[in-house]
Amino acid sequence: MQIGLVGLGRMGANMRERLRAGGHEVVGFDHHPEVSDVADVTELAARLATPRAIWVMVPAGVTDAAIDELVPVLAPGDLIVDGGNSRFTDDTARAERLDQHGIGYLDVGVSGGVWGRENGYALMVGGAREHVERLMPIFEALKPPGDFGFAHAGPVGAGHYAKMVHNGIEYGLMQAYAEGYELLTKSEMVTNVPGVLASWRDGTVVQSWLLDLLVRALDEDPELANLRGYVEDTGEGRWTVDEAIRLAVPMNVIAAALFARFASRQEDSPALRAVAALREQFGGHPTRKK
Amino acid sequence: MQIGLVGLGRMGANMRERLRAGGHEVVGFDHHPEVSDVADVTELAARLATPRAIWVMVPAGVTDAAIDELVPVLAPGDLIVDGGNSRFTDDTARAERLDQHGIGYLDVGVSGGVWGRENGYALMVGGAREHVERLMPIFEALKPPGDFGFAHAGPVGAGHYAKMVHNGIEYGLMQAYAEGYELLTKSEMVTNVPGVLASWRDGTVVQSWLLDLLVRALDEDPELANLRGYVEDTGEGRWTVDEAIRLAVPMNVIAAALFARFASRQEDSPALRAVAALREQFGGHPTRKK
Repeated sequence: MQIGLVGLGRMGANMRERLRAGGHEVVGFDHHPEVSDVADVTELAARLATPRAIWVMVPAGVTDAAIDELVPVLAPGDLIVDGGNSRFTDDTARAERLDQHGIGYLDVGVSGGVWGRENGYALMVGGAREHVERLMPIFEALKPPGDFGFAHAGPVGAGHYAKMVHNGIEYGLMQAYAEGYELLTKSEMVTNVPGVLASWRDGTVVQSWLLDLLVRALDEDPELANLRGYVEDTGEGRWTVDEAIRLAVPMNVIAAALFARFASRQEDSPALRAVAALREQFGGHPTRKK
Repeated sequence: MQIGLVGLGRMGANMRERLRAGGHEVVGFDHHPEVSDVADVTELAARLATPRAIWVMVPAGVTDAAIDELVPVLAPGDLIVDGGNSRFTDDTARAERLDQHGIGYLDVGVSGGVWGRENGYALMVGGAREHVERLMPIFEALKPPGDFGFAHAGPVGAGHYAKMVHNGIEYGLMQAYAEGYELLTKSEMVTNVPGVLASWRDGTVVQSWLLDLLVRALDEDPELANLRGYVEDTGEGRWTVDEAIRLAVPMNVIAAALFARFASRQEDSPALRAVAALREQFGGHPTRKK
């Protein structure tokens, strides 16, 4: 089928390739003309037969700006898909706003990163059944072949919600492997740390794609000596913990993984300066001065 | 090759089958005569040509008793393998004790559980290179085919150490999935929780064997309604956190996963009775009385 694709960064450009390889007609638009198929959104809309479907694949912060740019050139019956990492709380308002123009809306959580073009993207979709059914040929082309990699999670917002929880879990998984890795490197016992991690890739309870990637990183740099232990976060972990707080869900592991990232970004810890100060006050314990 | 196998419980019996399927001659001994190939350890020793290799596969608490039973019937040059979940700190003493009798020792962390007979067991081995090389045909038969599932982790103790860390990581991974699962079930957004989890099995960053098993459990019981949230631990998680404390490794996620299991086993929490008491004391906040 025909689809418009707005945002041709690393994710969008790869998805365009996968969709075209799947036999679909993709008209891509990006503000960088060297990657764009059309000059502007007016040409994008003109190139698509109505009712149109347009997939927006831009960073979460500029999704509403991209949609605002599209609305004037679209028509009732058209359908917008947000495949970015939007916060689920934005989806309902966005869907209502588009509904006033007669434009449908689906939110899709997309996983797969740079590997998706080859392996397929896992898709978690929120929205009305009729809209999901209309886009199924596109979803089929993007997802991995086989039984998995696609879920209609619920109404508008549910796709990004599912992706948010997916990413929160990812934080916990990564930190669990990482803590075990650090312990192995500190132990006097295990002399073959990369070998042990590689051995876990088959036959163990901890085998996973994340483990495969960690082994791959250790193949390239056996002590991860070229990296600093500094880790950003892009929001989904915070939103997951926010939701756990709203719904009173005990979330010790995912919250600890999130907080470990925050700590990784501090040059110095005000909290631990306070602990040092208190130990000095009550016990005269030695401190380290700046 | 020929090998003795002491302990024919669920793990040992399955390993005997896999070893025989791999062309090895296994003489099994167990105190339950209905599963045992021989009447006692004397017959076991007599059935094996010297130098013997005997794999001990018994619960961690009775490993030393099983070894004590073997020593009098063995001879210098024989080799004992402990494939149970021993604590790595027991291995060095055990190896030294056996060395006084001229008997070699390998410690092997075995992963794979009930799936191992079919898929192969991942093996993490500690001990001297010459002993490891002598047992390689057995390791090759037990491990999954292919490049992974085996590591010579280091000297005596390193095999159980690696398995301990493996299990500690496993605690963290399980708890991360579990917390995400609970949030999804509490959310008003996601109406298809099993479908979302199943979709993650391909194309996502969180795909893993543990996720496959969780989806399998939800297929059988979509709300896990037949289970109580009560979880035992068999020691490796505690030992992992003990080691993190000894080596001053920050281990927030694995420790939180361990503590979540402890909390799951409390009928009531003395700590939270204390919190309730304090809130009542300073703020007159309502409490729940027994």
